[in-house]
Amino acid sequence: MTGPEVTSRRRGRRTRTESAGTRDRILTVAREEFSERGYDKTSVRGIAKAAGVDPALVHHYFGTKEQIFAAAIEVAFAPALNAPDAVADGPLDGVGERLTRFIFGVWENPATRTPLLAILRSAVNNETAAGVFRRLIASQLMRRVAAQLDAPDSELRAELAAAQLVGCAMMRYVIKLEPLASVDIEQVIARVAPVVQGHLTGR
Amino acid sequence: MTGPEVTSRRRGRRTRTESAGTRDRILTVAREEFSERGYDKTSVRGIAKAAGVDPALVHHYFGTKEQIFAAAIEVAFAPALNAPDAVADGPLDGVGERLTRFIFGVWENPATRTPLLAILRSAVNNETAAGVFRRLIASQLMRRVAAQLDAPDSELRAELAAAQLVGCAMMRYVIKLEPLASVDIEQVIARVAPVVQGHLTGR
Repeated sequence: MTGPEVTSRRRGRRTRTESAGTRDRILTVAREEFSERGYDKTSVRGIAKAAGVDPALVHHYFGTKEQIFAAAIEVAFAPALNAPDAVADGPLDGVGERLTRFIFGVWENPATRTPLLAILRSAVNNETAAGVFRRLIASQLMRRVAAQLDAPDSELRAELAAAQLVGCAMMRYVIKLEPLASVDIEQVIARVAPVVQGHLTGR
Repeated sequence: MTGPEVTSRRRGRRTRTESAGTRDRILTVAREEFSERGYDKTSVRGIAKAAGVDPALVHHYFGTKEQIFAAAIEVAFAPALNAPDAVADGPLDGVGERLTRFIFGVWENPATRTPLLAILRSAVNNETAAGVFRRLIASQLMRRVAAQLDAPDSELRAELAAAQLVGCAMMRYVIKLEPLASVDIEQVIARVAPVVQGHLTGR
């Protein structure tokens, strides 16, 4: 081996764009591997093999398995990470409905639901994965939502609101408990939005 | 082999009590296996081996792997199945606090939390396990809570209340998001009980 990257191109012709392409390809493969196998059963070696690169290159771009997972779920979780914008996009007395509608929008769409489910599975199964997920939602979601609330306990408020939404997602999309699994989503939003509003701005 | 049961005792001396003992031992082992390995990686053969019996005897007592899982989680989930009694044990306008306090009591105790976490893991990871869990909580929990409410949509109400409680458990005990993970449980109950009350009896 002459270097960490294994490609069919000659090293001399590699450009910055090609490196970015390789990095993206590894990240896409990592997302798929973590999604299909879960955190425990995914290995750096397996990601490297599926991406057609040397494991050293995966380490070079992303670091440890934990760090690759962090990068992969940040991409997979990206749609949900727009939630703070939904919170910011209007007056505070409509925040419950905006946030609830936004979150269920992400869950109702199979294309965005599937990666969320995969992250949830890894987080429930593995302490390290749970830690990565915890740091992601704390920094990218909870703190950003909390920052828009005018209350000393704003982070706890954001988390209790999130708990109602996460619990609904568990019951509707994972456990698939009836009638909640089949009831029209507008009916769910009508019941849940006031609760989310209450947690965020109540009393 | 002379029969499905493999024990050191002579067949002629076996009694009804011994059979019950064997059945219980298999169930205990099954609970441990499902809890440690999850639904996917647990096999009837593995349960039989750990219990020191023939796989045919496990099938004889419990049926399929899915049916063994159903029996095992009914035992593991037993503490939570007293929730409908907590609901019944007082006036309807205090039901939110009674149910919330009861459920967090189960989750706060490591001895009852551990089997709940194991069931949750299996249900999130495997569709068959999710189905078994769904049928158990539908028949033993949701319908029994709903039966005590005086509303046409009582099952949906029970499920939305459960969603708030399940979501809090996910955030506090699985993802361990701060401040929710460390805040005094009485503070959580004070915030969540009115929401549960609202879902169950509101408007």
